[in-house]
Amino acid sequence: MKLMKGLVSILAVSCSTFVFANAALANDESDSSVEAEEFVRYQYQDKVSYGKLDNDVVLPVSGDIFGEYSVAKNSIPLESVEVLLPTKPEKVFAVGMNFASHLASPADAPPPMFLKLPSSLILTGEVIQVPPKARNVHFEGELVVVIGKELSQASEEEAEQAIFGVTVGNDITERSWQGADLQWLRAKASDGFGPVGNTIVRGIDYNNVELTTRVNGKVVQQENTSFMIHKPRKVVSYLSHYFTLKPGDLIFMGTPGRTYALSDKDQVSVTIEGVGTVVNEVRF
Amino acid sequence: MKLMKGLVSILAVSCSTFVFANAALANDESDSSVEAEEFVRYQYQDKVSYGKLDNDVVLPVSGDIFGEYSVAKNSIPLESVEVLLPTKPEKVFAVGMNFASHLASPADAPPPMFLKLPSSLILTGEVIQVPPKARNVHFEGELVVVIGKELSQASEEEAEQAIFGVTVGNDITERSWQGADLQWLRAKASDGFGPVGNTIVRGIDYNNVELTTRVNGKVVQQENTSFMIHKPRKVVSYLSHYFTLKPGDLIFMGTPGRTYALSDKDQVSVTIEGVGTVVNEVRF
Repeated sequence: MKLMKGLVSILAVSCSTFVFANAALANDESDSSVEAEEFVRYQYQDKVSYGKLDNDVVLPVSGDIFGEYSVAKNSIPLESVEVLLPTKPEKVFAVGMNFASHLASPADAPPPMFLKLPSSLILTGEVIQVPPKARNVHFEGELVVVIGKELSQASEEEAEQAIFGVTVGNDITERSWQGADLQWLRAKASDGFGPVGNTIVRGIDYNNVELTTRVNGKVVQQENTSFMIHKPRKVVSYLSHYFTLKPGDLIFMGTPGRTYALSDKDQVSVTIEGVGTVVNEVRF
Repeated sequence: MKLMKGLVSILAVSCSTFVFANAALANDESDSSVEAEEFVRYQYQDKVSYGKLDNDVVLPVSGDIFGEYSVAKNSIPLESVEVLLPTKPEKVFAVGMNFASHLASPADAPPPMFLKLPSSLILTGEVIQVPPKARNVHFEGELVVVIGKELSQASEEEAEQAIFGVTVGNDITERSWQGADLQWLRAKASDGFGPVGNTIVRGIDYNNVELTTRVNGKVVQQENTSFMIHKPRKVVSYLSHYFTLKPGDLIFMGTPGRTYALSDKDQVSVTIEGVGTVVNEVRF
């Protein structure tokens, strides 16, 4: 088990390098006048920090990434650090039925929400080791919103200001359990059911980016986030009326199109234009 | 808001004293040969620790309360410390339909589970400030299990060993939202919807204790935990097959009997024999 973890960690680092290169490329191609910034959470010499990503180096952040901070000029090679989950969230929310191509909910109603768990999160490159009796495990490629401020009873304008940035995620779902159980719990929040990207990207128009999911290289979902029925600002405002949102909290924004059951050793990747890729192998 | 927090905190300390006295009394009356122990998590001179409770003093715990630890002989008066939530859980689970007097689920099936949130927890003495549009807010008095070990794929025997102790809780529920929403989320996990006791009690037979809920002093629920359909050892084992349980994780064990909607300024208390009381005022 320890050895396996070691191997997975090596895989994660090699995948990360690919993802960073990929996102940097997408940024270069962007016409946006606001420059996109990428942040990564990492461990280096026993210390956990955030850093700003500049191609293949990390510029350490001093202070609070979600508050006042400065970016150092000295850089660390990306290959020297251990990349960590992008945040340590207290809460992980998700929106259901947010694309008409998948399942539609009324646009003038509150967004239908459910919970994932911080413990369901894994990084790109890690294996999705499904629970013993899981048989009907589906991918769901999604945009993931990262909260940057403590927030309560917020208007949509305040909510939008409180969004620090976005990453990419895969809302892994055991579809049979989802139908059979009293509530979506093991169906949505089992260990490993929340792969997320290893960067947080700011300064892009996350309401208008292309999302693509691939299984073993074949495109299985492709849609623009502009088709989200409930936009991040609405969802964040809604949640803040019941839950005090905290910096680092995550919101999975719902999946487009159709999904199907994965098989042992399938490789599933979710890519969002200008954001990055999360890629994982499934093991039964 | 800051002033209000201060007042609430004073209220919590005075209530705590009552609760501790109450639990100590129950222990004295017990015939059990294993001596019950009570632990409290507290802040004293800027340091957060666990301590063993001995009447009105705290004996500080050194080391890891969930691993190797020792109990100091020097004591701190209980009134000098700020009592905190009994754990900082990563996950807060709850069992539905676990008493036939409330709603029954099949005894030979997996326990029906749902999630609350660490952010829904409040202490005895704190106000349950319900979200703005909540109208149909019910009490649900419950036993709460505290996990003491990291646990995965555990048998019922291993699960029982991993239960550190128990506390008392109130699984506050907005009944209309519970019926209307896609998933129980704001209905079960809104801020303040998880009052819990401020002690963790070990060494009692938590499968055979009387649970009593009172509203403004009037008994509204009363039943022995021996009527739980799914026992803690079964629930913990079940969960561990999907979620790696961590020390400090909590499981609300389900409510007996009938519940009804609370009104503004109602005082609701849940008492478990030998465990303690959690008492809170509701504000709309």
